[in-house]
Amino acid sequence: MTDRSLVGKRIPKIDSLAKATGEARFTADLTLPRMLHGKILRSPYPHARILSIDTSEAERLPGVKAVVTGQDTGGEKWGVFRYTRDQQLLPVDKVRYVGEEVAALAAVSEDVAQEALDLIEVEYEVLPAVFTIEEAMAEGAPLIHEGFDRNINIHVPIEVGDVEGEFGRAHLVREDTFVSEEESYFMGEPYAILANYDTSGNLEIWMPNASPHTKAKALSNVLQIPLTKVHVRKTTIGGAFGGRSDVFPGEFIAALLSVKAGRPVKIVYTREENTMATRQGHSMITTIKTGVNTDGVVTARDITCHMDGGAYSSTGPIATSVPFLCLEQVYRMPNVRYNGYRIYTNKPIRGMIRTHGRAFACGVDMQLDMIAEELAIDPMEIRLRNATRQGDILPTKSVVHSCALDETIKQAAAKSRWKETRGKLPPYHGIGMGCNSVQTGFPLGIRGGSQALIKFNEDGGATVISGVVDTGQGNDNMLIQIAAEELGLPMEDLRLISADTEVTPTDAGCYSMVSTFAGGNAVRLAAQDAQRQLFEVAAEMMGAEVEDLVARDGQILIEGESPTGIPIRKVIRKALIQDTPIMGRGHYAPHVDHSREWIKNPLGQLSEAFSFGTTVAEVEVDPETGQVKVLEVTAAQDCGFAINPTVVEGQFEGGIAMGGQGGVLTEGHQWSGGHMLNPTYREYKMPLACDMPQINPMIVESLDPNGPYGAKEAGMSIAMSAAQAYCNAICNAIGTWIHELPFTPETILGAIENKKKKDA
Amino acid sequence: MTDRSLVGKRIPKIDSLAKATGEARFTADLTLPRMLHGKILRSPYPHARILSIDTSEAERLPGVKAVVTGQDTGGEKWGVFRYTRDQQLLPVDKVRYVGEEVAALAAVSEDVAQEALDLIEVEYEVLPAVFTIEEAMAEGAPLIHEGFDRNINIHVPIEVGDVEGEFGRAHLVREDTFVSEEESYFMGEPYAILANYDTSGNLEIWMPNASPHTKAKALSNVLQIPLTKVHVRKTTIGGAFGGRSDVFPGEFIAALLSVKAGRPVKIVYTREENTMATRQGHSMITTIKTGVNTDGVVTARDITCHMDGGAYSSTGPIATSVPFLCLEQVYRMPNVRYNGYRIYTNKPIRGMIRTHGRAFACGVDMQLDMIAEELAIDPMEIRLRNATRQGDILPTKSVVHSCALDETIKQAAAKSRWKETRGKLPPYHGIGMGCNSVQTGFPLGIRGGSQALIKFNEDGGATVISGVVDTGQGNDNMLIQIAAEELGLPMEDLRLISADTEVTPTDAGCYSMVSTFAGGNAVRLAAQDAQRQLFEVAAEMMGAEVEDLVARDGQILIEGESPTGIPIRKVIRKALIQDTPIMGRGHYAPHVDHSREWIKNPLGQLSEAFSFGTTVAEVEVDPETGQVKVLEVTAAQDCGFAINPTVVEGQFEGGIAMGGQGGVLTEGHQWSGGHMLNPTYREYKMPLACDMPQINPMIVESLDPNGPYGAKEAGMSIAMSAAQAYCNAICNAIGTWIHELPFTPETILGAIENKKKKDA
Repeated sequence: MTDRSLVGKRIPKIDSLAKATGEARFTADLTLPRMLHGKILRSPYPHARILSIDTSEAERLPGVKAVVTGQDTGGEKWGVFRYTRDQQLLPVDKVRYVGEEVAALAAVSEDVAQEALDLIEVEYEVLPAVFTIEEAMAEGAPLIHEGFDRNINIHVPIEVGDVEGEFGRAHLVREDTFVSEEESYFMGEPYAILANYDTSGNLEIWMPNASPHTKAKALSNVLQIPLTKVHVRKTTIGGAFGGRSDVFPGEFIAALLSVKAGRPVKIVYTREENTMATRQGHSMITTIKTGVNTDGVVTARDITCHMDGGAYSSTGPIATSVPFLCLEQVYRMPNVRYNGYRIYTNKPIRGMIRTHGRAFACGVDMQLDMIAEELAIDPMEIRLRNATRQGDILPTKSVVHSCALDETIKQAAAKSRWKETRGKLPPYHGIGMGCNSVQTGFPLGIRGGSQALIKFNEDGGATVISGVVDTGQGNDNMLIQIAAEELGLPMEDLRLISADTEVTPTDAGCYSMVSTFAGGNAVRLAAQDAQRQLFEVAAEMMGAEVEDLVARDGQILIEGESPTGIPIRKVIRKALIQDTPIMGRGHYAPHVDHSREWIKNPLGQLSEAFSFGTTVAEVEVDPETGQVKVLEVTAAQDCGFAINPTVVEGQFEGGIAMGGQGGVLTEGHQWSGGHMLNPTYREYKMPLACDMPQINPMIVESLDPNGPYGAKEAGMSIAMSAAQAYCNAICNAIGTWIHELPFTPETILGAIENKKKKDA
Repeated sequence: MTDRSLVGKRIPKIDSLAKATGEARFTADLTLPRMLHGKILRSPYPHARILSIDTSEAERLPGVKAVVTGQDTGGEKWGVFRYTRDQQLLPVDKVRYVGEEVAALAAVSEDVAQEALDLIEVEYEVLPAVFTIEEAMAEGAPLIHEGFDRNINIHVPIEVGDVEGEFGRAHLVREDTFVSEEESYFMGEPYAILANYDTSGNLEIWMPNASPHTKAKALSNVLQIPLTKVHVRKTTIGGAFGGRSDVFPGEFIAALLSVKAGRPVKIVYTREENTMATRQGHSMITTIKTGVNTDGVVTARDITCHMDGGAYSSTGPIATSVPFLCLEQVYRMPNVRYNGYRIYTNKPIRGMIRTHGRAFACGVDMQLDMIAEELAIDPMEIRLRNATRQGDILPTKSVVHSCALDETIKQAAAKSRWKETRGKLPPYHGIGMGCNSVQTGFPLGIRGGSQALIKFNEDGGATVISGVVDTGQGNDNMLIQIAAEELGLPMEDLRLISADTEVTPTDAGCYSMVSTFAGGNAVRLAAQDAQRQLFEVAAEMMGAEVEDLVARDGQILIEGESPTGIPIRKVIRKALIQDTPIMGRGHYAPHVDHSREWIKNPLGQLSEAFSFGTTVAEVEVDPETGQVKVLEVTAAQDCGFAINPTVVEGQFEGGIAMGGQGGVLTEGHQWSGGHMLNPTYREYKMPLACDMPQINPMIVESLDPNGPYGAKEAGMSIAMSAAQAYCNAICNAIGTWIHELPFTPETILGAIENKKKKDA
């Protein structure tokens, strides 16, 4: 392991310069010959029947080349799962949230398109609307979708062990309810689509997405174009965070417009459209009842979570499950009941997000601190006593093959001087800890696997071909680093082709934190396959045995002999001359239980590996203003193995910004009658670089037996645990508990006030 | 063979609709974000020393982002071969023809670029120039390149057998000299380049080209960018005809400008630039001395050919050799001497062209008619007596594995009613025959081979990945047709990725008529490899033996059993689920003698296969105007096997237009002091559709043992033999010989006049 030259090293990302100089091509930058500009007309009402749409005036405007409404679609419904097909991508019957797509058109310029949009006349019958979980579930509430009683969209029930029995036997039982607002992603790049349907029936399409192959399949289904003819193209992507998955009406519309106009169509979302009409994270109400023994070890837990899902299902079954799954992974809960409810409301659609169920995790973790306080156990100690260990079998039956959670707790505590600090800080200073765990891939698509090819070029350089997409996290770099390591080539001798569904073989996408695990393994195997072919040619050239050869710095050497061998370049030429061109293949699919389902059978191996993260935050609260100053954050993650520590640490930093600094302290939407009041950067308060605390990143390696070099998911269990640590630190600082996220100054001042009243 | 469902059938080309609708994207159509427009300043003098270039005013013009001159290049010289490096792609010392590149710049618009071009000041010292072979070789002529005595650029000497001895023993010896003007290609698409050099050191470049991989290698050498970082991209190409090979200064300049500006740069040539500054065919003077026995069988031949090569070497060694090689392939010449001289002149650069050495072939063939006349042998009969046969070993030592030349002669004669017509036509009506042969690939690049990949997609469709480029002749269609045939899939289930040097594996390019032979074989092998993998999975699913399976119409069946099997789609899914994704590989390199060289050792197997064509033309000459009306053309070619007869016949038609109708009758350049007077469509007389005669295409199949399904080169030996047939038919009509091409009305009238004088 010690002789690795690239993997495990700090390598600048291969796309940094292109991004820094503005050279990187995002979808909105692209232009095709004969391209038209598309615009979408959106609903001004949260709930209304569409009585008529008159596009005739718009169609007559010179420069307008195509107009589409629900009438062009046949009213077919789309859903991520067969059993969640509830969304007409262009609605025929009614609109269900403010911002929903109603009609669209393509014209020779954006100006003409905008002008034409204003000429479309839609007649609506406004319907009563519901905006909260309580309103939606109330007796007699208007139904957003027929047949979904009390607007319950999805119900995930899980029960393992003897929950009620253990509550009876518990030393202490606590029940708390936590509420939180929805979160937004605010990717740097607003959504954009460029679609080109050609005369041969091919659709090529560019858009920021987290899985070109999954996107292609969905578009193939929804547009009824054979998969082989749907080409999702590579483009630079300005962030995903879970919000670039699923199929959005924008893609469907751009493709429809291109079909109708016979020309390429580009649609660039405004920031407002990006916030309202792609996805958001769910707001939620979580009630947690926990029983512990005298040592603070959890013996039983019952969780009920209601999530505001907005107008349609989207990735609902996943979103309703994952918050629980993360928690069952991190803290042992031998007897557990979970009821997750996803509720329809007349608000924008909610889907997967990097910090899935943040309030859920914060609730479980804050309650653990409450129990620790009641039992006078140190919060670090109670976490160690409840921490998942290697070899554990989780309630829903996944085996944990690698786990260094306890190490992350201990190292984060040591680095943050936990023992010296906790309980010894001045008033309104606090320190808090949170732990979380995230899956490294779960089954999506056929087997969720990834294939890779490595093609050697005449000059001895090689091209890596992989379906893995880079949404900003550094996947491109990871693939090249692994290939270069295996092949003994400098990274600059390798080129990457990725994320183009026409060119690259199948990949499940960078959902569910699987890219390094599956894609990295596939590239590693492809490189090993190519190297075996290379060594066969080289062995003959060198009069050596294949098994004695190694590759290093672009040379093939006989192990232990002279430090110079023959250049790989020469071996490639020899191979070409003797008609044995070198091409390596690799494929890796995580070994998970494919009979496991989200709702009907949520038991079995969910993911082949799990990451574990612990974050400690130290804060100072101004009791006069309720403002929080975060002094220091220590984040320790068991990511299995850090292929590029710089990139992993970058994920920690981003995760802390999103999960903790923004998510706990400032981010949240304001609403008025289903209208979002703060859809832009100006009003929605994202943390800036200058708001960020000092961060101590700590990589803890557990060397997963199946991950490439031992690697598994990196960064996301920090994003989650950061939120938990922030909550616990603030509660520690003010000496009371808060049950509502975000922890705005108003909320904090309110809690201080209440405590003062109670103490008085 | 009879159960083939696609190969051998008339299939519409897959790109026809895109080309007919204007949807196809040519280089000039492309736009990249931040793209600049480039323009090139060209020499107004045919021969001049560059004393100074002042670009300062141009650089100061707002909107100008980069200016380059020879000073930016280090004066390095480029050549197709190591021993022909004579061209500074941006000259430092002097210019050698009118139109040569002197400086270039890139600006924010074409208008600004043009304006800036006018601000560049170049000081020249005009030098004496030479414009013809005679002038260039004259005693005391100015030398265009130092060290090339009498401006002889290249000399190819070949001698086999006892030439002088056989002349002594011959029944009849004739010597004739033929001259011809240079030819132009006049592709539908003027040259254009889009180059983008990025911050990672990658160059991506689009341009019409006949071999992306060879182009990439050349650009890598000349720009000193590693091959792995040079990405020649796929683009639609509007014709090549040999004139899109080689490296042109335009590409080098566009890349340099992009490096300097740090932005993409597009240069679109005007029609004038395309004619003067890409390539032309050589003009030539050929002296042929032929000895025959009493039966008209050639016993010895001595050919001296002087070719006007223009200012630089380009593909000179090939161009100087191929005209002879085609003739040694078609007509037996056991004792032969060849001296080919390529001469520098102060005219545009001449390179490879579809009708390589047309005047040479016409000379040999017209002289054969002269000999036939002297010996009172029918021209068809003398051709049959001298025709190459299968199994022959050519003078330069190639073995002819397949040959149906005699069949092409017989079938063309039968169809054109040769025996009923020849010698029995009214005055000024004539019929003539010509025969030619063309190589099916000769070694270029590493082994001249081609690799292919076939990747199955989840829906059972497949993607073919091949480096073969389609320059308009239908290669894209050929590759898909072969893959579909082998895989038992409908063509619409297959997609093609081709001609992108980053994505596709090595291919030698569509030089030398090798695409079907090498590229087609490679795709066939890849399909067979993929099918073997498919059958392994299917056999298990069906409980059958692999060897009993066949694939047809998207199904896998047990041979001889029920007509329905399992859909390939299902086998693919099964393969994915069991972690054995299907990916086929193929590679084919023609078996040729790699020690053979163009000049120093022109002996050995040149090409693995040779095509043979016979054309018969029937014409009517107006003795008052010299105008020729071509009544009917019958073209019979041994193309081995016609994979798509419609495409092959299209090649016949294009070849007859270019080789005969245009090349013999109307095309030719006019010059004044090195200035071309007719560089555009308006002045250079190309035949129009309405000028074309009735054509009888006849495909003769010889089933080459190594070609895919027996296929070899298609169409080009018709382009050549059409020229020969036109010449012979006109001479037959007017009853006298013409030694000068093209056969313009003036030339024909002159010949009629001379004959009248002689007869009188």
